[in-house]
Amino acid sequence: MTTPVTLSPAPTGTAVLSGIELARTIRGRVARTAAELTAAGTLPRLAVVVANDDESSAWYVRSIAKAAAATGIHCEVVDLGPDVGPERIRAALRTLSDDVAVHGIMLQTPLPPDASVEDLAAAIAPEKDVDGVNPLSLGRLAAGLPAFAPATAAAVMALLDHHEVPLAGRNAAVVGRSNVVGKPVAQLLLQRDATVTVCHRHTKDLAELTRPAEVLVVAVGRIGLITAEHVAPDAVVVDVGTNPTPDGGLVGDVDAAAVTGRVAGLTPVPGGVGPVTTALLLQHTVRSAARPAAT
Amino acid sequence: MTTPVTLSPAPTGTAVLSGIELARTIRGRVARTAAELTAAGTLPRLAVVVANDDESSAWYVRSIAKAAAATGIHCEVVDLGPDVGPERIRAALRTLSDDVAVHGIMLQTPLPPDASVEDLAAAIAPEKDVDGVNPLSLGRLAAGLPAFAPATAAAVMALLDHHEVPLAGRNAAVVGRSNVVGKPVAQLLLQRDATVTVCHRHTKDLAELTRPAEVLVVAVGRIGLITAEHVAPDAVVVDVGTNPTPDGGLVGDVDAAAVTGRVAGLTPVPGGVGPVTTALLLQHTVRSAARPAAT
Repeated sequence: MTTPVTLSPAPTGTAVLSGIELARTIRGRVARTAAELTAAGTLPRLAVVVANDDESSAWYVRSIAKAAAATGIHCEVVDLGPDVGPERIRAALRTLSDDVAVHGIMLQTPLPPDASVEDLAAAIAPEKDVDGVNPLSLGRLAAGLPAFAPATAAAVMALLDHHEVPLAGRNAAVVGRSNVVGKPVAQLLLQRDATVTVCHRHTKDLAELTRPAEVLVVAVGRIGLITAEHVAPDAVVVDVGTNPTPDGGLVGDVDAAAVTGRVAGLTPVPGGVGPVTTALLLQHTVRSAARPAAT
Repeated sequence: MTTPVTLSPAPTGTAVLSGIELARTIRGRVARTAAELTAAGTLPRLAVVVANDDESSAWYVRSIAKAAAATGIHCEVVDLGPDVGPERIRAALRTLSDDVAVHGIMLQTPLPPDASVEDLAAAIAPEKDVDGVNPLSLGRLAAGLPAFAPATAAAVMALLDHHEVPLAGRNAAVVGRSNVVGKPVAQLLLQRDATVTVCHRHTKDLAELTRPAEVLVVAVGRIGLITAEHVAPDAVVVDVGTNPTPDGGLVGDVDAAAVTGRVAGLTPVPGGVGPVTTALLLQHTVRSAARPAAT
């Protein structure tokens, strides 16, 4: 499979792989499903558990709540405050898991220092784990069984598919190995028959390993990590980084100015993976709500 | 880290990375733990569920039972016959999971056509999942949480450690992406800070991707898959393949004659990964038996 990226290239030759239109399409579908569910007596409900007083976390939670409301999903924020212990967080996740009126559960980061997502996420019922953080979700994903993928990882794949980027038999590199992005993206690319290289901070010569990649996914959180020397001319680059700038803006991990004109396609930040992630979180929630209740 | 392999090289320059000595050491440790457990009133017990009439499966199960007996572990073979449905297999796994006298459970392959390991393995209690096939085990492994790794994957890592092959920051390639070897080995290498490339049947130019590897793990099941063109002079090659030959012997996936003298180290087949795998299966069983019972 060597079908090229079908998006019409920008004047620079580098296609801008926007997520805006895709996110809008997904949100439209979600809104229709949510309306049907509500008409049938089930109000789709997403619960977000927060245990921090971080400003960017609060901003993200507000944006999810707003997007949920706009698509007819009730979003409930369970704010435990920043001084709570892991047992209290676990108890909140268990209560929500047992609550038949709740269809999706998200555990927001950062967490208090003695709490970890990996440890707490097992308390999220797998069928409500719309951000795919429960180790069972990650394992089912790796084993090729149905499971919610972390929304960001799912968004990377959705964006590649939306822009018709072929994956089977192609060389892909993933920079970053987090449990919420790097690792699940690598699993999903592998499932789609890409040959996958996972790079991280211990990688000796990053450019040497990313340069052969036809599909490059970057999820580290470091401004300017990927520059011209890291990319091949035929590469499609997905920038998952969202780094705040001093002027209140947002930039990715890829030096967009340096690679534009040198690669086949690049997702913008903002307006790339981000909006698709939120839309998929909502899609996962209505999917969970639409499922017949377990008996 | 560029510490070389410490094994004294064979006359060919290629060190033979045997698993025999390591397996013996592990079995010795297992036997001591099993004796202590038995003296304290707990006979360590491994149950192997079989649902096939495959000859090489029967051979493997016998070899496990023999090794178990030699180390003081009781091995119980639950042979359901080849014509059993998935529900019967699942029920057997659940019964064993609930049986406090059983500490380790293995589901032997091949399975009947309508049964799959991925689907059935969830019925194995994670704390008894000594061959790491439950998706939760795979997910916990990927998330960096304590879990039993599939014994073969654990054996690859144990063998690399035994022969003091450095991993952090090194380029590793894994050929094969099965849930029991390729994927978990990739996760374990990643956890040890190697840069990991996973190749498989859709990989376009295998040699191009394996040649930069300083550590190459091959787990496909195809005789002669890896030849001289696939390896670098500094590579350590772990051959997980066990392919029967017409004369009743066993060969790996690596053309040993072709790569010997061209790589730094190579595991033999037989006598490499195989004996370590069996020893680790027994080690996992006594570990499970030594754990305080869940309340």
